[in-house]
Amino acid sequence: MIQVQLIKELKEYIKTQRVSGKSIGFVPTMGYLHEGHISLVKQAREENDYVVMSIFVNPAQFGPNEDLGSYPRDLERDTKLAEEAGVDLLFFPQVNEMYPQDGGISIHAGAQANVLCGASRPGHFDGVLKVVTKFFHLVEPTTVYFGQKDAQQLAIIETMVRDYNFPLKVRRGATVREPDGLAKSSRNVFLSKAERAHAPIIHQAIQLGIEQYKLNQNIEQAKQVTTQHIENAISGKIDYVELLSYPNLTTDVSNDTTVILAVAVFFEKARLIDNILLDRKGE
Amino acid sequence: MIQVQLIKELKEYIKTQRVSGKSIGFVPTMGYLHEGHISLVKQAREENDYVVMSIFVNPAQFGPNEDLGSYPRDLERDTKLAEEAGVDLLFFPQVNEMYPQDGGISIHAGAQANVLCGASRPGHFDGVLKVVTKFFHLVEPTTVYFGQKDAQQLAIIETMVRDYNFPLKVRRGATVREPDGLAKSSRNVFLSKAERAHAPIIHQAIQLGIEQYKLNQNIEQAKQVTTQHIENAISGKIDYVELLSYPNLTTDVSNDTTVILAVAVFFEKARLIDNILLDRKGE
Repeated sequence: MIQVQLIKELKEYIKTQRVSGKSIGFVPTMGYLHEGHISLVKQAREENDYVVMSIFVNPAQFGPNEDLGSYPRDLERDTKLAEEAGVDLLFFPQVNEMYPQDGGISIHAGAQANVLCGASRPGHFDGVLKVVTKFFHLVEPTTVYFGQKDAQQLAIIETMVRDYNFPLKVRRGATVREPDGLAKSSRNVFLSKAERAHAPIIHQAIQLGIEQYKLNQNIEQAKQVTTQHIENAISGKIDYVELLSYPNLTTDVSNDTTVILAVAVFFEKARLIDNILLDRKGE
Repeated sequence: MIQVQLIKELKEYIKTQRVSGKSIGFVPTMGYLHEGHISLVKQAREENDYVVMSIFVNPAQFGPNEDLGSYPRDLERDTKLAEEAGVDLLFFPQVNEMYPQDGGISIHAGAQANVLCGASRPGHFDGVLKVVTKFFHLVEPTTVYFGQKDAQQLAIIETMVRDYNFPLKVRRGATVREPDGLAKSSRNVFLSKAERAHAPIIHQAIQLGIEQYKLNQNIEQAKQVTTQHIENAISGKIDYVELLSYPNLTTDVSNDTTVILAVAVFFEKARLIDNILLDRKGE
């Protein structure tokens, strides 16, 4: 596995792959890798000649009061995990390499960013779109891989790729879970022992809500079932429980054939998110 | 010369060029071609294996009260001129092919767009950035060519390409002029006979202003000389006469080693722009 920190060097390796006609699979991450990331790499490995992973904790997507400084980092461990998973090139640029100057041009997510996590994280998805645009241009991938756990991020990136004709395909990776159902997340390390014990309730609650929705397509009832199940069992505070169309993310679910039931819960030192997508074609 | 209207078809031709390792020169235009465009094509022809031109009057860059409907169009003549100039592929998409849907994600130019033409055309450069981003992703050019006559557009696009790491080079084409000095423009056809006779004053006035600036680096005096020369001879109304740093486009000219003296003048049915760039390294 090649390890690259400089853009100039990255571009030389990418050029070599491109001129030899190789397909490039790209897995952008913020590091502190878990099985969710590894599963994306394996998918990329199966579908491409060359696999690139980036590790970059992107300041542009953190708000002033968010956990940029404390976001977990362990490059040594990540390097080992990436190599074992089959990454060909690991790109871990410095902040000043990614943002050396700023001419003031910005990308703004639309209404899709005003719900779910976006509602409490103003500017977050603008920062995500900025960094993924830069990475897409640097890596020139054939296919990019994002986990469905960050479903809103996935929806917004898919929309940008479609509306701005990025020459690449976006693949969704299924959420990888602990044996007890908790979605894998770099932020799970911040849970206390007691919080960790209760956290799988989130996934159970979403499953119950989806089952309820399947019964009668009543959005409010489905949200109620999920909310109740979480409130009965978890000390954390619910940020949101929403059932929306996907990927348009509107309350009018007729906008898409898929719906998402998504949840965010605040714990003492972490905010966890999870979701399930339901294909309504059979309704 | 291949003529293509559909994105799908364009992408097939581009793919063929890319897999064979050919360099692609790209000249985006709004059509109604003149010698300025042709000179960009010739530059692209010299520097690349394959030359693509697009013709698309982009609605996203016209304001509600601007001349979108009356912008001159003549695809038949343009096709002939493009072929003669050495274009390999002419892409002329329909509006619904370029903007089939809108997920609400937008690109915004920064402070560079608040001066010169941008001051009186709010949103204009956002629309330019939107369409060039789409074209860059569709054509995947090695090098793109823009005329220096639209100097603000050029500066903003260069900034976006730099800050967002687009994998391409931007080349500036020198302004092509009529024998009497008037900058070539698709909008020159809208000048009355009397206006056309006076229009070369604009270029003269900019030259005089630049000479004045070289004498003592006094920005106000240089602008005054230019303004006076235009007002003495032209019936049209001055929109602006500005001397700014380039490409940062700030009034503090120490921000760049180059300055621009730029002018816009309203005539009865056309608004003409022109400029000169001056390298101050020797100061």
